[in-house]
Amino acid sequence: MKAWFCEELKGQWRQSVPVGPVLVDQQSDFQHIQVYETEGFGRMLVLDGKVQCTERDEFTYHEMLTHVPMLSHPEPKTVVVVGGGDGGTVREALRHPGLEKATLVEIDPQVMEVCRQWLPTMAKGLQPDPRLEIVTRDAAEVIGSLPPQDIVLVDSSDPEGPSEVLFSAEFFASLKRALKPDGLIALQAGSPFFFGPQIAAARRELEKIFRFVRPYLVAIPTYPGGTWCLIAASDAHDPQALSLEELRLRRQQRGLELRYYSPEVHLGSMALPEFVREL
Amino acid sequence: MKAWFCEELKGQWRQSVPVGPVLVDQQSDFQHIQVYETEGFGRMLVLDGKVQCTERDEFTYHEMLTHVPMLSHPEPKTVVVVGGGDGGTVREALRHPGLEKATLVEIDPQVMEVCRQWLPTMAKGLQPDPRLEIVTRDAAEVIGSLPPQDIVLVDSSDPEGPSEVLFSAEFFASLKRALKPDGLIALQAGSPFFFGPQIAAARRELEKIFRFVRPYLVAIPTYPGGTWCLIAASDAHDPQALSLEELRLRRQQRGLELRYYSPEVHLGSMALPEFVREL
Repeated sequence: MKAWFCEELKGQWRQSVPVGPVLVDQQSDFQHIQVYETEGFGRMLVLDGKVQCTERDEFTYHEMLTHVPMLSHPEPKTVVVVGGGDGGTVREALRHPGLEKATLVEIDPQVMEVCRQWLPTMAKGLQPDPRLEIVTRDAAEVIGSLPPQDIVLVDSSDPEGPSEVLFSAEFFASLKRALKPDGLIALQAGSPFFFGPQIAAARRELEKIFRFVRPYLVAIPTYPGGTWCLIAASDAHDPQALSLEELRLRRQQRGLELRYYSPEVHLGSMALPEFVREL
Repeated sequence: MKAWFCEELKGQWRQSVPVGPVLVDQQSDFQHIQVYETEGFGRMLVLDGKVQCTERDEFTYHEMLTHVPMLSHPEPKTVVVVGGGDGGTVREALRHPGLEKATLVEIDPQVMEVCRQWLPTMAKGLQPDPRLEIVTRDAAEVIGSLPPQDIVLVDSSDPEGPSEVLFSAEFFASLKRALKPDGLIALQAGSPFFFGPQIAAARRELEKIFRFVRPYLVAIPTYPGGTWCLIAASDAHDPQALSLEELRLRRQQRGLELRYYSPEVHLGSMALPEFVREL
């Protein structure tokens, strides 16, 4: 008999994956942290009962959250990652050779400890690097005190528990203040099938303060519904207005070899199905 | 206590949805047919234990299987739907006002009976229409005897059980023979995460016999992994080479108001993530 890890969404849907013995099962000051060995997805990080990432499919989310905004910027030198304690997002950001400073603001040190030990392919983003500073604090408190950034990536869990504050209008305003005038942000906004109203609310708030607000979709098989909405926003750079040629040139100049992102996918991911566009 | 319907994929993944009492539970000559009332997805058709479609999300699959090839053709007058006994695909095809003849070839009359009774929003495609002929036969036997078509849509279940034959090189060749020289086909090829080798095999076989072979992706939350690969193919019309303007004009001329498909989505869905492109 094998054991199945089960995640339930709003009483409407469950996904289960067969798992070996739990590798980590801890309660931190902020959340319940688990790591499982799975049969089909490699190791899997679970926070408060929700799958955050698996070794097999994390590249889809981390590449799209990071490279869409960073390639929409002509020369990103500074990036802040809010959350993202698994290291996957900062790992992707550090692949841009022109980056001078990456700041990871993660509230929960235990998540980073666990990922360093059990999820090294993601946590290699947390390894010592002269460009990287890790700040173990509440992003909502810290974000106002950082120097203006080129890029801010909000790699949060869902708007419940410790991440709820990261979806408020106040926090969005603080993200804008943390940016240079031509900076970009990107954040995860949820499933267009299951979290339509939340996506619409986030989009509405962002449109009050940014000139360009571009939702885009990424396929993540271990997230409920399998399709996730991210949003990029900026006052200066429209991520949808770049030509394929320009994006190809930037990718080539930065030497990025990726498994999900391509310039075609960058633009194609912003072609929203009608029911999503209308949210 | 509510009951949960559970579907398992290759021992690697399960999805479950809460269901009311089963509405239909029959064994036909070809397959096990079930219909459930669900809490979050409306009614749900299950064949041989696999979710085929739900009232809530069937539009994503049926629109993309149908309108991508039909809008890639300047004036489709004849269409054959292989499988598709729920009626959803032929419902979409019949929305093209220039269509003169639709032929539905479904091997299992019980699927159609069940859908007529329990899934009327899809089965309205099966209602009497002077343009519609329903042939209750094995498509592999019938396809060779039909007059040449503008469009053939293969709306099959997965390549196991009664649909296995629909993924063979022989059947693909018969699809080509069933087309006019400038016709198009489209078919479903599976999850890029879970059925990569099958998708690659289908693509390879199609590329032996068609000039243009274009895989494209659609988000379907109740299919394993949430993202499905469809393939359109033709010797004359490249579905990826059309301009947005041309697609918008065709959609407008045909009066199509859709919930998933748009000209932007048509082209965006063919921007394949790198790991899919490389399959």
